[in-house]
Amino acid sequence: MDEITAETGTGAGRRTRSEGRGAAARRASRSGGGAGPSMPYIQRKIPVYEVLDEEGLEIIERNADIILEEIGIEFRDDAEALDMWRAAGAEVRGERVHFPRGLCRALLKTAPSEFTWHARNPERNVQIGGKATVFAPVYGPPFVRDLDGNRRYATIEDFRNFVKLAYMAPSMHSSGGTVCEPVDVPVNKRHLDMVYSHIKYSDKPFMGSVTAPERAEDTVAMAKLVFGDDFVENNCVTLNLINANSPMVFDETMLGALKVYARHNQACVVSPFILSGAMSPVTVAGTLTQILAEVLAGAAFTQLVRPGAPVLFGTFAASISMQSGAPTFGTPEPALVSYGAAQLARRLGLPFRTGGSLCASKVPDAQAAHESANTLNMTLLAGTNFVLHAAGWLEGGLSACYEKFMIDQDQLGMMQKMAIGVDLSEDGQAMDAIREVGPGAHYLGCAHTQANFQTAFYRSALADNNSFEQWEIEGKKRIEDRANALCRSWLDSYEAPPLDPAIDEALTAYIARRKDSMPDAFT
Amino acid sequence: MDEITAETGTGAGRRTRSEGRGAAARRASRSGGGAGPSMPYIQRKIPVYEVLDEEGLEIIERNADIILEEIGIEFRDDAEALDMWRAAGAEVRGERVHFPRGLCRALLKTAPSEFTWHARNPERNVQIGGKATVFAPVYGPPFVRDLDGNRRYATIEDFRNFVKLAYMAPSMHSSGGTVCEPVDVPVNKRHLDMVYSHIKYSDKPFMGSVTAPERAEDTVAMAKLVFGDDFVENNCVTLNLINANSPMVFDETMLGALKVYARHNQACVVSPFILSGAMSPVTVAGTLTQILAEVLAGAAFTQLVRPGAPVLFGTFAASISMQSGAPTFGTPEPALVSYGAAQLARRLGLPFRTGGSLCASKVPDAQAAHESANTLNMTLLAGTNFVLHAAGWLEGGLSACYEKFMIDQDQLGMMQKMAIGVDLSEDGQAMDAIREVGPGAHYLGCAHTQANFQTAFYRSALADNNSFEQWEIEGKKRIEDRANALCRSWLDSYEAPPLDPAIDEALTAYIARRKDSMPDAFT
Repeated sequence: MDEITAETGTGAGRRTRSEGRGAAARRASRSGGGAGPSMPYIQRKIPVYEVLDEEGLEIIERNADIILEEIGIEFRDDAEALDMWRAAGAEVRGERVHFPRGLCRALLKTAPSEFTWHARNPERNVQIGGKATVFAPVYGPPFVRDLDGNRRYATIEDFRNFVKLAYMAPSMHSSGGTVCEPVDVPVNKRHLDMVYSHIKYSDKPFMGSVTAPERAEDTVAMAKLVFGDDFVENNCVTLNLINANSPMVFDETMLGALKVYARHNQACVVSPFILSGAMSPVTVAGTLTQILAEVLAGAAFTQLVRPGAPVLFGTFAASISMQSGAPTFGTPEPALVSYGAAQLARRLGLPFRTGGSLCASKVPDAQAAHESANTLNMTLLAGTNFVLHAAGWLEGGLSACYEKFMIDQDQLGMMQKMAIGVDLSEDGQAMDAIREVGPGAHYLGCAHTQANFQTAFYRSALADNNSFEQWEIEGKKRIEDRANALCRSWLDSYEAPPLDPAIDEALTAYIARRKDSMPDAFT
Repeated sequence: MDEITAETGTGAGRRTRSEGRGAAARRASRSGGGAGPSMPYIQRKIPVYEVLDEEGLEIIERNADIILEEIGIEFRDDAEALDMWRAAGAEVRGERVHFPRGLCRALLKTAPSEFTWHARNPERNVQIGGKATVFAPVYGPPFVRDLDGNRRYATIEDFRNFVKLAYMAPSMHSSGGTVCEPVDVPVNKRHLDMVYSHIKYSDKPFMGSVTAPERAEDTVAMAKLVFGDDFVENNCVTLNLINANSPMVFDETMLGALKVYARHNQACVVSPFILSGAMSPVTVAGTLTQILAEVLAGAAFTQLVRPGAPVLFGTFAASISMQSGAPTFGTPEPALVSYGAAQLARRLGLPFRTGGSLCASKVPDAQAAHESANTLNMTLLAGTNFVLHAAGWLEGGLSACYEKFMIDQDQLGMMQKMAIGVDLSEDGQAMDAIREVGPGAHYLGCAHTQANFQTAFYRSALADNNSFEQWEIEGKKRIEDRANALCRSWLDSYEAPPLDPAIDEALTAYIARRKDSMPDAFT
């Protein structure tokens, strides 16, 4: 395990660097799966892959318009939202909003196609949209699979650990949001600890709480203590996950959070959460049609709240087993859905979110890896701008898994290298090397190889490429054993990024005051 | 494991069917990873993914021409080949052939861009080239990882088993070639047993022996006993792997086999076997340049032997660890090489071979799966026509693994379903379903779902999508445990396809005669 020996224990997540972008290839190759200097968000130089032609896209867009006009989208338990739609010219029947042809698209003209998501360390700022791809960790699991192989409820300690790991992972560009549910903290207070953990233990951009409007307000208030009031009102410092209640419903909770964030100019990721066959038709085209209608309605609503507020076209796509009703991941149909949704988002001019490292497996085995890899390869090639669940997702999202987090983040490094594409410079063409070596010789020692080998190939810190005999001598370890060891070594060597003590105190005081104002609630 | 219960024990590999192609989607969904009726080769309806633009392609083509003209390619220990090149207008210095600009491309004008590879059961014929993709099992491993978890030398019994499994796997379109090395049979005789096993235990198209010209002749002779003399001389009934000895060398053995097969109109897969950094430059563009030059020379040579003989543009791409020298798989750089090589092949009008389910792992764990999935997703999207090593490859190709074969063939089913793309028919659009269900309801029981759920989603026979609790009750099995059980059940229920007893006798007699003519050799 030469790679592990070479890379572990550097604890370089602690370093902040201000290198130029020219070193991207070197870093993408070298820092591999080991903790190393964080890499900037991905700027894709490879093309996108598209599964729909113009005719197919037009069919889906036309059908989505029919949904919006004739069937309508429900905005539930939110009279304010219905009033806003009425004022905008929509026809509201009960809680069902019917949109005149073209209304949503017209509203979305004010939404930015690209924007900066600010981190408290400006070197960690990321771009959302265009050719940028940003990875964020798993979101939402109530359970963890811990380093002793136990599956148990997640705690605030687990939450902090995943924030630390995401901070140290070179190709994780964001600290994420609910990296797991800290169920040992009262449900009405845990958002305060979560947001604080992101700020305290990482300096990468983080996501806000969406489970109630007042928790969204807390998120914004805490962000203001870090970034300043004016900065927050004029810049995106949180990205916030607003799921549609598919099919064709937005509920009070999501609308409440959406309104808070959009009003404060914070980004909403409007994401139909689709298990095809249950929340959408069993077909790819039908699912895409419904997704487009839902996003058009939800995203346009952000522009009613505040024209110009950043908003993403989100898609969470899985299928259900028609035998058991269980969700399935990494299968062809959700991949086709996501590829198609990315195309629809580009045509709308909205940044796009989908994919990740999704799986149904209960352990980080080959099932988990196949499902995750099928999803992640699609995620990159679709041209996804924001990738939630990029590492650590296990068991249909019910568990955050430490070992899988490590395995996944290694794969994120591969995707980051892949995105650089083919170097066609003189050096990349390597004609000197080919002339120097000639037929029948080898390239190991030639000048070109010596000059380039540090940057040539992605180096995994977890893959075992040794001989069978060497692997046997080293204890016949599986990748999750190596991931376990690497994870422990990262957590041992973690060092927090500097945080202004005055800001830390202000945050702590805010949290204490807010917690004191509420009784504990656990449901 | 409802899927397994539903699918196992059908032993439907034994069935031969003559269904129309219209049922492709249904079969691609239903037969999943379980043994079921074999599916026809893939006819891709999805686009290809390309990483090089016109300018990049031209740079590489121009550089490859420089290699051919100025550096040259060696044809070693084969005076006949050098004479043929001299006669064709090339300049031969020693064993080094220098090709005038355009000679190889001109020669390749007679090579077919698409052809039929015939099986003894015409229903199993496959198309090579164009939008067709054909999967074949792992090729060449001297070891197996058996169903008891032992790693040991492969035997003829293992060989037969992998032929049987490939026969039963619905998305395996070919029986392959050296699915493992039967090292218990003398090295100079084992090709006879291998070819016989393919004919006897499968009716899918098979590959020929390439380890010596006389073994290639034996392959052709045996094929003639099955297909008839004239048929073989005028049709492709074997596909044959001709590796370049990179960099820029073809050796006596490969040239000998190439000449035999091309003379008999059998297909050669001219494949530079590249571990970048050792056999080619460490860069993608440099590697592509060398690959193109090698293929141009080797493939053009088949047309010198017999104009019109089918030939493929092959690429085996991996990188080496610059730390240990070990080959690595599933990393970004070989994927970029293969994507680019596919583009170069299409521009030449040659069918293309690359990829598979490659990995360096010693066990079918998440490393094996990530590496395999990264390779296989690329293989499909690159538009690969012939895919060797599509199932069973472990440990850098040193071992054929039963469990991994089962896991891989399930993934092949996913790729086959993916290749169908998006159904944009009225039924695919599903507007009736969306109208019927409406906001806030679910699609499980709607008419459209009921009519389509059998074909909607790919069904894996190996993925566990159940709840954690159910998985726990069922013994916390990993996917390789389920693959092991499924593999045993397939082998138990295997039934050979019918074979004309007269042909069988003729083959047996031929083999006996040939074996009697040689002493046993084990090296």
